[in-house]
Amino acid sequence: MNLLTPLPLLPPEHPLPSLLATATEATANEAENGSLVLAGVLLSLVVIYFASKLGGEICARINLPPVLGELVGGVVVGVSALNLLVFPEGGSAASNSVMMSFLQTTAGLTPEATNSVFQSTSEVISVLAELGVIILLFEIGLESDLKELIRVGPQAAVVAVVGVVVPFAAGTAGLAYLFHISAVPAIFAGAALTATSIGITAKVLAEIGQLSSKEGQIIIGAAVLDDVLGIIVLAVVASLAKTGEVVITNVIYLIISAGVFLVGAILIGRFLGPYFVALVKEMKTRGQVLLTALIFAFVLSYIATAIQLEAILGAFAAGLVLAETDKRRELEEQVLPVADILVPIFFVTVGAKTDLSVLNPAVPSNREGLILATFLIVVAILGKVITGLTVFGQSGINRLAIGVGMIPRGEVGLVFAGVGSASGALSEATEAAIIMMVILTTFIAPPLLRLVFQEPSEQVETAGES
Amino acid sequence: MNLLTPLPLLPPEHPLPSLLATATEATANEAENGSLVLAGVLLSLVVIYFASKLGGEICARINLPPVLGELVGGVVVGVSALNLLVFPEGGSAASNSVMMSFLQTTAGLTPEATNSVFQSTSEVISVLAELGVIILLFEIGLESDLKELIRVGPQAAVVAVVGVVVPFAAGTAGLAYLFHISAVPAIFAGAALTATSIGITAKVLAEIGQLSSKEGQIIIGAAVLDDVLGIIVLAVVASLAKTGEVVITNVIYLIISAGVFLVGAILIGRFLGPYFVALVKEMKTRGQVLLTALIFAFVLSYIATAIQLEAILGAFAAGLVLAETDKRRELEEQVLPVADILVPIFFVTVGAKTDLSVLNPAVPSNREGLILATFLIVVAILGKVITGLTVFGQSGINRLAIGVGMIPRGEVGLVFAGVGSASGALSEATEAAIIMMVILTTFIAPPLLRLVFQEPSEQVETAGES
Repeated sequence: MNLLTPLPLLPPEHPLPSLLATATEATANEAENGSLVLAGVLLSLVVIYFASKLGGEICARINLPPVLGELVGGVVVGVSALNLLVFPEGGSAASNSVMMSFLQTTAGLTPEATNSVFQSTSEVISVLAELGVIILLFEIGLESDLKELIRVGPQAAVVAVVGVVVPFAAGTAGLAYLFHISAVPAIFAGAALTATSIGITAKVLAEIGQLSSKEGQIIIGAAVLDDVLGIIVLAVVASLAKTGEVVITNVIYLIISAGVFLVGAILIGRFLGPYFVALVKEMKTRGQVLLTALIFAFVLSYIATAIQLEAILGAFAAGLVLAETDKRRELEEQVLPVADILVPIFFVTVGAKTDLSVLNPAVPSNREGLILATFLIVVAILGKVITGLTVFGQSGINRLAIGVGMIPRGEVGLVFAGVGSASGALSEATEAAIIMMVILTTFIAPPLLRLVFQEPSEQVETAGES
Repeated sequence: MNLLTPLPLLPPEHPLPSLLATATEATANEAENGSLVLAGVLLSLVVIYFASKLGGEICARINLPPVLGELVGGVVVGVSALNLLVFPEGGSAASNSVMMSFLQTTAGLTPEATNSVFQSTSEVISVLAELGVIILLFEIGLESDLKELIRVGPQAAVVAVVGVVVPFAAGTAGLAYLFHISAVPAIFAGAALTATSIGITAKVLAEIGQLSSKEGQIIIGAAVLDDVLGIIVLAVVASLAKTGEVVITNVIYLIISAGVFLVGAILIGRFLGPYFVALVKEMKTRGQVLLTALIFAFVLSYIATAIQLEAILGAFAAGLVLAETDKRRELEEQVLPVADILVPIFFVTVGAKTDLSVLNPAVPSNREGLILATFLIVVAILGKVITGLTVFGQSGINRLAIGVGMIPRGEVGLVFAGVGSASGALSEATEAAIIMMVILTTFIAPPLLRLVFQEPSEQVETAGES
């Protein structure tokens, strides 16, 4: 009996007599569903990796940032086009998922079980995407320089605050006075203009090797602060939409907890750093550096989530602290493959959840949204670009690059649109306009950022050579 | 406004005014639940990594295989002791989960949302564990030698078949004649004796550097075949328990599909190997080797699941094929950290799901089970150890090691107990006895395996030196 004896081929689409399912009731059905969820996750990962590599490689060849390719790849496989990778939060039903149809045809998924398998698969992929952005921010933290961040702290803080205040004020005032939109939705749309997607900016900076430049560190510092400010603005606006008033103690609570968390994590982390190095040196089993570091990163991420901040802030703080230890290089090497398999899940998922149908001008109801969107996009871009001009006390710095680095709204902007829509404060046109603004700023930022970083540094090089 | 200004400290356990949850209904609640699932997953991973490293390091220091420490670490945090990591499939309710209570206290999880967050968190961790064993088998495949496997194929096949037939016959006959148990439950218990947990054996072999030895390759080959045979035996027994008869066409179908799959995957994979190398050489973005390899591995894993085999067979075949390419070394290096973060989830989860309460002799109802278990354990160990003696045509081979390598039943054995119990064929005592047999063989195999491999190789070394 040889393992390699050739046998006649049965097509894998052949409908199977499901032995387990007919044999026993509960356990077998559960086991069956469990293995179908696994099958769904495996297929989703294949689609995600394929889309990310195809998109990334095409962008790399036409001199665009690979991360843009991952986002576009996500759009192609997502709800806007192929419907291979769709999510219940986006309003998709299991019956819209081409993946679920494929599982029904090839893996014996029954129509009754489809909904629960769809829910579970989407849940797992969403959590993997979140773990992806956590690992990304951990990696960004590892590659950042805490001393440099502290040095550029004041500039970053000014950039962050101006980048929140200017788009918010200009957006809200413009919608109210030019478009005669009432106060609450105008404030909501203005608030959606304040966010910055640290993930997209940081990934592009890493790709073009500008993460540790002075500009890169100001952008990262400002984006982290923007994330905190965004959470506060969202809390304020959401409470305004709900009750018509702002509970000032909650705002103060959020500001204090964010400050205490970031400062506390860094101080405690720096104190624990030497013990971390001593501990992993004593350990004898595989993966000691990586797992010990991840325990630290995940604990901080958990605390950040628990106090209503975002998990990525904890991961970033953990990376920042561990970058100060002797194990930095070893850790960077080991995190790389982990980031390679998890981070694309995040970017492809962001693309897949983006519904481009709001951009179609052939649909009459989109037109009002398109006009609003044009205004929001102008404010979104100008409002962040001018923040770069506020950088003080730094000569020879690329102010334009800093402003451009703050442009992408990414998933944070979509959260505003979602919360606003759920609260009933936003009209459909306003919601669509916010989504269009988020899409455009997210997709335009990576190529723009690469552009503004290339020009001056080439001039500097030429100047240096001549 | 400086990032690092110290602020008064608020305790993180402080119960929080949940701004988002009060602000809007549906979306905000979903977002809230989503972030609580993420929080639950992060905490679970912290517990898993901590248990695996603590257990692994202790075992490494007392000269036991680290994987045993991961299993025991899982038992300690699982349903048998601390109840930190429990699963709904094991019959645990959300209210038993210490982790959920912790989330309620620290992260504002409401009692109403607890059940769904518990379900989702457990689902995600279970899928991560399955991805862990998939990556483990992919890694084992990468480190295996296809030519050597084919060379030892006939021996491995004999070991696998004898290792299925002898324990099955001895177990069933013994239970029927010595313990007067009726035919169906006796056959079920006998069938549970046939499985081999390839994961545990392969991990120990890798830890002691014996994976690519002739003994190691025979064990791996036999364990892979055993996995296929186990699936067939389960299908037969389950259908017997349900309908009282065996549908022979299903059995033939399973045998043919398993054969076609393994042979086809390897043939097609070897054909595609050069294209894989050429493709990744052309690619310019990060993680090209790893992601392209994982796409291949996940596609094969999916096909294996779809045709009612196990995903790990696909992953093993993919590893085996890619080991033949020029990219083997690069791939091995990049898979290492990925395996480091995913594989412990599998072993700790296996331990956490193991309910040791069936072993307590103080409970009178356990006693009948304990007597049955003693018999099953003796058959389980002897039935596999003698398979080593059947290895023919290999001089100077460690036959004892081969037999011992087949001992652990692991999760496969638990599937038998679960399916048998759900079908109503097994009495409580018989089910408990099977679970005890699985626990003991799983936990005894790692130290035994290390023992039987150490002795002869030391003798050989001494002989070589003198």
